[in-house]
Amino acid sequence: MIDRIAILGTGLLGTSAGMALRAAGFKGSITGWNRSAEQAHLALEMAAIDSIATDPIEAAKASQVVLLCVPIYATLDFMEKLSPILGPDHLVTDVGSTKRVISEAGTRLFNTPDSAGFLPGHPMAGKERGGASLADANLFRGAVWLFTDDPKAQRSPQAAELVKQWRELVHSIGSRTIDLDPARHDELVAWVSHLPQFVATALSALLEEQVGTAPELKDVGGRALREMTRLGSSPFSMWRDIAHTNTEAVANALHLLEQRLAHIRENLRNPELRDEFEQANKFRRD
Amino acid sequence: MIDRIAILGTGLLGTSAGMALRAAGFKGSITGWNRSAEQAHLALEMAAIDSIATDPIEAAKASQVVLLCVPIYATLDFMEKLSPILGPDHLVTDVGSTKRVISEAGTRLFNTPDSAGFLPGHPMAGKERGGASLADANLFRGAVWLFTDDPKAQRSPQAAELVKQWRELVHSIGSRTIDLDPARHDELVAWVSHLPQFVATALSALLEEQVGTAPELKDVGGRALREMTRLGSSPFSMWRDIAHTNTEAVANALHLLEQRLAHIRENLRNPELRDEFEQANKFRRD
Repeated sequence: MIDRIAILGTGLLGTSAGMALRAAGFKGSITGWNRSAEQAHLALEMAAIDSIATDPIEAAKASQVVLLCVPIYATLDFMEKLSPILGPDHLVTDVGSTKRVISEAGTRLFNTPDSAGFLPGHPMAGKERGGASLADANLFRGAVWLFTDDPKAQRSPQAAELVKQWRELVHSIGSRTIDLDPARHDELVAWVSHLPQFVATALSALLEEQVGTAPELKDVGGRALREMTRLGSSPFSMWRDIAHTNTEAVANALHLLEQRLAHIRENLRNPELRDEFEQANKFRRD
Repeated sequence: MIDRIAILGTGLLGTSAGMALRAAGFKGSITGWNRSAEQAHLALEMAAIDSIATDPIEAAKASQVVLLCVPIYATLDFMEKLSPILGPDHLVTDVGSTKRVISEAGTRLFNTPDSAGFLPGHPMAGKERGGASLADANLFRGAVWLFTDDPKAQRSPQAAELVKQWRELVHSIGSRTIDLDPARHDELVAWVSHLPQFVATALSALLEEQVGTAPELKDVGGRALREMTRLGSSPFSMWRDIAHTNTEAVANALHLLEQRLAHIRENLRNPELRDEFEQANKFRRD
């Protein structure tokens, strides 16, 4: 049974995961590490972790399951560092928002009978701002936790058992799990997660430029404006890695949206506008 | 004192206005008319109106204040029909989402000492779907109700008094009023209301085309997707008139957003992406 977890990165997701595990009755130890000592202390105060690790590699070694909750490139860095250190009685898993690059590294660095196991994961949960202070034991309740496992992984029996138990822990905190191919994952999230984010960023940046100083702005904009720009608060630090590791799919989605907006613009007074509304209505209805 | 109101159009806004007036203690009569008898009966059942008018022109004649809650072109039609029928002891006001065309018609058809008064209005409240069944006595609470009055209006003393009292009734239902120039109104709402709508429509229509049939779609999309596409449910019937009467400002806003998205697309791996996120962050922070 899993009874020693190390959470590397106690920001919003890492801290929420620790709190959720505790709320679900997990009795083992949870040690946490964060680049910023303040975030690690917050996680400790919020009882998401029961000890602060000063050395993340040592903490990983002393645990059975290592949950990486850091940006994508930091995840890749940790994977490189942990691969030679951990053995077949360890499982590393992550929460990164793109999975092709991470899954490739997982296959390259882990998942042999003699090495640690690696299970690429991506909970579809988050907030527009990060940080331990916003953590929530219920963040993953009702959400989907995606896995993009390698069907050819040849794990040790211990690592295979840890994978099974980690999936059960994810269920215990209220998430449903779905398994996807990594490339399909990245294409799908480009549409349903990354495109909405970049649209909100573009819209918010444009509104800042055009009406950011209009005195009536705050009064006139209602719920629709708030909703359509909420993600405008998202930090570049997180999205930079996503843009870097899913560039082609995101660029394709953005390009098609530009064309769609141009089509609407050219047909504001034409019957074609009706088709756009009807297709949009259909998306919401189905 | 206003004690006879006719609400022409008992959809979402008209029915909500009647319910809000009642909730605020308005004691006079409220008669209602709708092209669809079913919507009028719903408004009656919801106590938004106390009688159903079979002839909207007669109902307007018998009232002091006529509240037009129909789409923009239907509003303009009613204004043409009511202008020769009503006199200086009447006030006509509306809730149309664009104000330049309606305000021009108001100046042309009303607001002389011998004619009825006209006060162009636009409550910044609504839902992504219309209809009396979604009406809510609190719809206007905390919202801004915009007016784009003509400073050169030469109203009869009775009509001027009705304007003053209508503004007080709007305050009584929990709205704050702001006065704007009609052209400035249309430019501002193009940014904060119309652009977000057309973006949500384009995004929803594109997603329907690209991933509408993906089996994982509903599972994977989270709160961000729901929010960014909620307005995709909006009916063409309402937005057609907005697109027709604010074409230039909306087209300009759409064009600038297309350019902004292209800029992001071309800089997914460049430092310029940071500037976009920072400008978006600023919009949300201020």
